[in-house]
Amino acid sequence: MSAGGEFESLEEILERHVPEAQLSEVKRILFGKEITKLLLPEEAIETAKECNFELKGYGFEAAPEQLRLPRKIRVGLIQNHIVLPTYAPILDQINAIHQRVGQMVEVAAMCDVNIICLQETWTMPFAFCTREKAPWTEFAESAEEGNTTRFCQELAKKYNMVIVSPILEREKLHNTIWNTAVVISNSGNVLGKTRKNHIPRIGDFNESTYYMEGDTGHTVFQTVFGKIAVNICYGRHHPLNWFMYSINGAEIIFNPSATVGALSEPMWPIEARNAAIANHCFTCAINRVGTETFKNEFTSGDGKKARNDFGHFYGSSYVAAPDGSRTPGLSRTRDGLLVVEMDLNLNRQISDIWSFKMTGRYAEYAEELSKAVQRDFKPNIVKEE
Amino acid sequence: MSAGGEFESLEEILERHVPEAQLSEVKRILFGKEITKLLLPEEAIETAKECNFELKGYGFEAAPEQLRLPRKIRVGLIQNHIVLPTYAPILDQINAIHQRVGQMVEVAAMCDVNIICLQETWTMPFAFCTREKAPWTEFAESAEEGNTTRFCQELAKKYNMVIVSPILEREKLHNTIWNTAVVISNSGNVLGKTRKNHIPRIGDFNESTYYMEGDTGHTVFQTVFGKIAVNICYGRHHPLNWFMYSINGAEIIFNPSATVGALSEPMWPIEARNAAIANHCFTCAINRVGTETFKNEFTSGDGKKARNDFGHFYGSSYVAAPDGSRTPGLSRTRDGLLVVEMDLNLNRQISDIWSFKMTGRYAEYAEELSKAVQRDFKPNIVKEE
Repeated sequence: MSAGGEFESLEEILERHVPEAQLSEVKRILFGKEITKLLLPEEAIETAKECNFELKGYGFEAAPEQLRLPRKIRVGLIQNHIVLPTYAPILDQINAIHQRVGQMVEVAAMCDVNIICLQETWTMPFAFCTREKAPWTEFAESAEEGNTTRFCQELAKKYNMVIVSPILEREKLHNTIWNTAVVISNSGNVLGKTRKNHIPRIGDFNESTYYMEGDTGHTVFQTVFGKIAVNICYGRHHPLNWFMYSINGAEIIFNPSATVGALSEPMWPIEARNAAIANHCFTCAINRVGTETFKNEFTSGDGKKARNDFGHFYGSSYVAAPDGSRTPGLSRTRDGLLVVEMDLNLNRQISDIWSFKMTGRYAEYAEELSKAVQRDFKPNIVKEE
Repeated sequence: MSAGGEFESLEEILERHVPEAQLSEVKRILFGKEITKLLLPEEAIETAKECNFELKGYGFEAAPEQLRLPRKIRVGLIQNHIVLPTYAPILDQINAIHQRVGQMVEVAAMCDVNIICLQETWTMPFAFCTREKAPWTEFAESAEEGNTTRFCQELAKKYNMVIVSPILEREKLHNTIWNTAVVISNSGNVLGKTRKNHIPRIGDFNESTYYMEGDTGHTVFQTVFGKIAVNICYGRHHPLNWFMYSINGAEIIFNPSATVGALSEPMWPIEARNAAIANHCFTCAINRVGTETFKNEFTSGDGKKARNDFGHFYGSSYVAAPDGSRTPGLSRTRDGLLVVEMDLNLNRQISDIWSFKMTGRYAEYAEELSKAVQRDFKPNIVKEE
């Protein structure tokens, strides 16, 4: 248990208690094919220790081929607490998180990470539970020219790294706010942005108080390291969302998220992993950590007393591979950087074995779904006469 | 370990070794909300023991509502070995399995099961790995008038039970063979049939040697106990398949399967469970057990020596609920009957909380998918200029 009474890590409990003789079978059934641990540079390990964040590295291998070279790249996932209290001046809060995440990106660079993804709305507390507009909308920035984008551009250039930077976006022209991931090329240029496609209305937790469903479709970003897409948070519950990114060619789909508590945690290891299997691609699930306390209390439409926090964000960021295997999760309580080496050749290799796209009958689904969304749709239900 | 060297059960290993203090958190993260064990009648427990099969019972509860009565029903899942050797006379093989499964259905009746689902092509060995047409196609029967359907009709009437009977179907008129589930009403009438929508071509394991993709779409069967659908085997890898059954109104989707070995087992706990979450419904995953040995050796296009078996079918049948929780699995090695009580009100309750259908944007997906299946589809890929 951590200081806060939160359970630290499922995988560590299993490693500690399940006898050697059964552990490999337990892990195979739960996590798939055994993956290798990466040897990370001493400097990175030391720096992570000094800066008090967890650093883990794993590698997914692919078989050698005759006509293609391996396409080994390294992906980094960052999960972190907010740094200052939620009532600190906004610019101080942003700068403190920039500094913290900057350290972590530096360690990622030491580990030769090529593409890094930060957590959802990473520059701010996840304040949408409060339903207050002020001061939280002040965290919104321009995707193209905001401070955070400029900060990431510097890092991207310095470290030759693609950075996926999910922020609260302010679109200046109409003052609209979006939940957006900015994709910054390793050249330092903004490659583009992609907006959260599905907006939660879970119980009374309704982010459409702040921003609506994204209008950027299922854009895939061609980077020099591979084709990536970003399925933000609640979109992970929608298999069609993952699917459509894959149909547009994504080799890695990131899922920067912010999710708490008992309701979603058993779903967390299932959804991104199912998407990796079903779409013959890698998926990267990222969740923030910690409990964020707000000055004003709020209720949550759940019959409970007003309170000042939304619950514990349980971290547990992980990467899933198309062959059904996955990395262990990062801690449920600590800041962390997960470095994962993957050979992108694995996607095609698994597709050639399992053939889900070939056997997908998509034309028929397009037709069925087109009928199903008509107002006069009659479901195909057989009854006894 | 079982006699055959196969690992018996993930859940039992965890129960045995993880300390009490951590076990509930481990189980919550892995399996979701704690579910209740059903008290099953002594007679059923005794008979299962005498007949040497595992009997387990669990219950998923829902909250009481003011305007709807609970809709509690009991579902039964049966997993079993073949009974006689694969070289025994065909009619003897079928009769022996009928007798065995008949015993198990009787125990299900003692447990007040309302709907039971048998495993894929339950009357026969899963001989499609041999690629021999004879004698295996002789196992095919008429869905409407075959011996197996008649056998199930008797059971259905006798026990007032809906029976989902997945068989190898022979369509007489054109001599075509299908992989079909026959749904028999508790009245004893054949309510209808539904054919396997996605046919595996995994490595060299190509069932389209025997039967092609089904032509029955996504039929849902309205029984007196609830609306059910059957997603046969390999269709579980296709999220669109589960989805379309749900769109047609399915409250419970059965997934009778036959799957072996290292490649699929880590996917097994993920796919049906993801479908239950994503579609706000119950899913029931059923896999046969045992290693089936054939007279003639065959290769599997995997560079290995010719052999006489396809590998170990690992059982592990389970039920998943829309709230992300699931039952433990049946054994990896033994015949078994899983009895699960579920309040179907849970589906709507979870849908009202999580709202995946409301937030699904299906009209937009219908449009995107319709474009994606066109020959001139241009994927939405952004590149640096």
